[in-house]
Amino acid sequence: MKNKYAAKASCILLALFFGQVNANALDIVRVDPPNWWVGMHSKTVQLSIYAKDISSYQISSSEDKVTIVRTDKTENKNYLFVTLAIDPALSTETVFLNFKKLGASTVRYPYTIAKRTAGSSARKGFDNSDLIYLITPDRFANGDPSNDHIAAMGDRLDRSAEFSRHGGDLKGIVQNLGYLKSLGVTQLWLNPVLENKQPNSSYHGYAITDHYQVDPRYGDNALYKQLATQAKLHGIGLIIDLIPNHIGHKHWWMKDLPSDDWINFNNTFSATNHMRESIQDPYAVEADKQQFTDGWFVATMPDLNQRNPLLANYLIQNAIWWIETAQLSGIRIDTWSYSDKQFLSQWSDRILAEYPQLNMVGEEWSTTPSIIAYWQKGASNSDNYVSNLPSLFDFPLQASIAPALKEEESWNSGLIKLYKAVASDSIYPNANALTIFADNHDMSRLMTQVDGDADLNKMALTLIATLRGTPQIFYGAEIAMQHPGTESHGAIRADFPGGWADDEVNAFTGKNLNIDQSQTLDYVRKLFNWRKSASAIHQGQMRHLAPMDGIYCFTRFNSEERWLICLNKNKDAVTLPHAQLVPLVNSGKIAKHFLSQETQLLTQGLTLKARSADVYRIQ
Amino acid sequence: MKNKYAAKASCILLALFFGQVNANALDIVRVDPPNWWVGMHSKTVQLSIYAKDISSYQISSSEDKVTIVRTDKTENKNYLFVTLAIDPALSTETVFLNFKKLGASTVRYPYTIAKRTAGSSARKGFDNSDLIYLITPDRFANGDPSNDHIAAMGDRLDRSAEFSRHGGDLKGIVQNLGYLKSLGVTQLWLNPVLENKQPNSSYHGYAITDHYQVDPRYGDNALYKQLATQAKLHGIGLIIDLIPNHIGHKHWWMKDLPSDDWINFNNTFSATNHMRESIQDPYAVEADKQQFTDGWFVATMPDLNQRNPLLANYLIQNAIWWIETAQLSGIRIDTWSYSDKQFLSQWSDRILAEYPQLNMVGEEWSTTPSIIAYWQKGASNSDNYVSNLPSLFDFPLQASIAPALKEEESWNSGLIKLYKAVASDSIYPNANALTIFADNHDMSRLMTQVDGDADLNKMALTLIATLRGTPQIFYGAEIAMQHPGTESHGAIRADFPGGWADDEVNAFTGKNLNIDQSQTLDYVRKLFNWRKSASAIHQGQMRHLAPMDGIYCFTRFNSEERWLICLNKNKDAVTLPHAQLVPLVNSGKIAKHFLSQETQLLTQGLTLKARSADVYRIQ
Repeated sequence: MKNKYAAKASCILLALFFGQVNANALDIVRVDPPNWWVGMHSKTVQLSIYAKDISSYQISSSEDKVTIVRTDKTENKNYLFVTLAIDPALSTETVFLNFKKLGASTVRYPYTIAKRTAGSSARKGFDNSDLIYLITPDRFANGDPSNDHIAAMGDRLDRSAEFSRHGGDLKGIVQNLGYLKSLGVTQLWLNPVLENKQPNSSYHGYAITDHYQVDPRYGDNALYKQLATQAKLHGIGLIIDLIPNHIGHKHWWMKDLPSDDWINFNNTFSATNHMRESIQDPYAVEADKQQFTDGWFVATMPDLNQRNPLLANYLIQNAIWWIETAQLSGIRIDTWSYSDKQFLSQWSDRILAEYPQLNMVGEEWSTTPSIIAYWQKGASNSDNYVSNLPSLFDFPLQASIAPALKEEESWNSGLIKLYKAVASDSIYPNANALTIFADNHDMSRLMTQVDGDADLNKMALTLIATLRGTPQIFYGAEIAMQHPGTESHGAIRADFPGGWADDEVNAFTGKNLNIDQSQTLDYVRKLFNWRKSASAIHQGQMRHLAPMDGIYCFTRFNSEERWLICLNKNKDAVTLPHAQLVPLVNSGKIAKHFLSQETQLLTQGLTLKARSADVYRIQ
Repeated sequence: MKNKYAAKASCILLALFFGQVNANALDIVRVDPPNWWVGMHSKTVQLSIYAKDISSYQISSSEDKVTIVRTDKTENKNYLFVTLAIDPALSTETVFLNFKKLGASTVRYPYTIAKRTAGSSARKGFDNSDLIYLITPDRFANGDPSNDHIAAMGDRLDRSAEFSRHGGDLKGIVQNLGYLKSLGVTQLWLNPVLENKQPNSSYHGYAITDHYQVDPRYGDNALYKQLATQAKLHGIGLIIDLIPNHIGHKHWWMKDLPSDDWINFNNTFSATNHMRESIQDPYAVEADKQQFTDGWFVATMPDLNQRNPLLANYLIQNAIWWIETAQLSGIRIDTWSYSDKQFLSQWSDRILAEYPQLNMVGEEWSTTPSIIAYWQKGASNSDNYVSNLPSLFDFPLQASIAPALKEEESWNSGLIKLYKAVASDSIYPNANALTIFADNHDMSRLMTQVDGDADLNKMALTLIATLRGTPQIFYGAEIAMQHPGTESHGAIRADFPGGWADDEVNAFTGKNLNIDQSQTLDYVRKLFNWRKSASAIHQGQMRHLAPMDGIYCFTRFNSEERWLICLNKNKDAVTLPHAQLVPLVNSGKIAKHFLSQETQLLTQGLTLKARSADVYRIQ
């Protein structure tokens, strides 16, 4: 792995010293995408070719089933964008592209256009039957210490520093697939694993410097594919985290930009105003909308101008390339609304044209349901904007969970917040397709949100397992990881105990877990393994009772089964009278606890344990 | 007045002692509505006739242009509901209804069906060019001390008690119409003035005991009509406050209910759960929806079952009767969503069929825009519910104003809250038709909301005067009335200084107003008188800039004029650069202050005064 990366790095270094290279020798530094496939829905692929003065070359194909249908040049003579049309009947895997210029010898560049994996376009994305487990790869498990120190990468390993690299990698994940499977995990969302050759704080992965290479500190592209393959053997799909909005300022593009308009605000830092409201705002001025969309997050993350169609194509093809290469089951899209909105429509439209059953979930961090709804596929928007995004993270629900559990009950605090969040589902085109979660890598961990109360933590996890939508948990939730006294992102993304050879505590083996940790782990395993076969939880209907006296109950049901979920925040057990439950249990006579299998006769009322969320099969 | 009321009261007393009356003598206690009109859009009127054993009588009409098309009886033999069809060609004003029964002499009951006031059906309701002034009639001005003590009414006058009667009345309002006109008021909304013969706390008016009589402590029906007439001479319309949801428990119905299903929950108190969300909630159980709609506010306010079509008709006709009788310009509807929602559609539909240009505004106290939007005419609701209500109070905006002004600025506090409230206007079918306000009789007064800061109070009033919608202020806002240290509704609805003969402070004359009061009064007069002719404020478009550094600016413009409104929360004056203002002022060169008429050259930037909201004409 190291060697391969070194070769690549030197290639780029070479590019930086074009002046010293023989001007007559065409040295193609890179072609993106590095390969493609025959039999895609779209019959064309746009190659971005990077080489000194490439724009002065004529290009032709060695193969009559691969034709050049379009060539685009920019202000930068070192880029040529070539669109190939690929005949579905193409059988040759290696096609040669011929580059010609007067007075120079023709260069033949081999380009691979392979057959697709059978059934690739029909791949099924994650859905409500899944449990998504989010991992920050640098912080989960260090399976290969040999990649801890990569000379070329800067931003060195220092486990004592919150924002430095800690050594977690893909091999660490591969090694623990069995553990993940035991939790009931069926989908893995990794924070971005693509190259982040940034000088510091690169561990989060959102400052990509190469769209086609896994970061060598995590492994390489082959290992990423291997992870996908191994995960599939464990019944686990792989979700890639893509960032169409921005890149790292050390991205290879930044030293020689493909075009003058590649980066927003003329490649000069101007901060986004974060005014996501401006997109739906009927009174917003263009300047505010532009500042939102085109403004940068930080000076080290240049903001991409997806209105440039060459860049738009580059980003769309990059998504498709990873899906096809690593046989992925979904995409998580970072900072969704910060990209150009027409591009976003096109982006999801084209990806779904290739993979109609793929799922993808966008991050639109707003607690206002109407803003989330605007971006979901099927929305009737007043400005007629058409979004094609199937799922979004349910931030409004997330924001209600800890307050619902922690706060004193009143007309506007406590469980009423959770109730209101769910009761507003008619705002969404498809609430059932939202992705639900109690925490992620960007916010306080659930256990900290609930002030370290393991009971409330379990109640929240039960909600995530039983409400509508696809559940997502954050690594460490299963052992109630917390970070008392700090909200530092570096601390939130702490190392998973057991992921490093010398760890005192080991969640994988259970070694030295405290009582809260081991009980939570045991509960999470049972909860999400039970959930796997609970069809009414996946796609069933829902009814709920308005919360009363610290109790919130709802039912999930379909024609085959009915579950009753009740939260009791009270410090004592409470018996709910039968009459109150009838709207949820109908003619059901017996409530059988989903774990203990203990039964209660509903006509005698249902006794809820103190400070607990419990699930009952109604029969 | 007193005498008339006494006669009425004894009539009702009589009704309570039917047993002692000659069973053969038909004594018609009341017919509602007490009169009607020829030439209405609906050609029929349903009379509710109340008399001992009336249901055993046959009824006929003396006039062939008035025919009886339907007779409805209920479980209660003392009620008969008779539907008359009125031929538009009817010219006789008094029609006799003949009541016959075997063995009894025929009783002829004169019923008035008069001509309508010319142009009545085309009356124009309040709109965005208006300023609505809300008065709690018991607390504004005592114009007629002779009605302070009405023997029959209980709940006596005691100005020392917050929840007792204080003596304000209609004459007090009539006497001060000149003052109201001087403020720029063009519409008067009075808290209900209909009879509230409740044992205590009746001063708010929301526990009606007779739908067809003004409370004698305020005056009588004739004086109410006179108020409307006099107000019109001052350019002021009258808006009635109606309560289809509930009545006072001393309503005359309650001693002899018209039907078994007249009052929800079998006429037994069961509190509403206030879960307004249940109406839009896709998961709500019927029991929760019913508890919301059918539950009572308090035991002394029985909740009406508008699913009974006789009652529905009664309430609809009652609204029309008051509009036609007192030549009203609009309706404010109390506790809108708590009534049966199909009834509400029908209620507004039928009133608007009679008065297509009337306006009406519903109270739906939610700060969630999607809930407000659900009830507005034109909403595309996921449950296909059709609302016909043109306006609702903009509670989401209201809730944002004081926090916007008071809170420290940050990404989620201060002006951003105001910006977000307005930026979500695309959620409403017609944001421009909302009624906007900073306070009302049910909440902390504006000056108290902003902690007694007269600068912030003026800024809030400026917002109410310049944002989209119809502005509404609460009596006393013009002198920055406040109630430090208490949130008691009785204290919020304090006596208006000058309304009582011995008042030390008199806002009507300006006597003894403190500096905050007199400056606020002066500003309100100028602000709302300026507003009267500012067409772009009434119906113009709007653009705004995202708030930055404690400043929020927006423009209101049409083809004829452009206004720039800027709020500066900072303790110092701030000069905004021209470039920043261009999206709001376009090619405008000069900003002229709307009051001082001072001009600033925009190319040199616009200097905003410290802690001020200012309005500039852009030229």
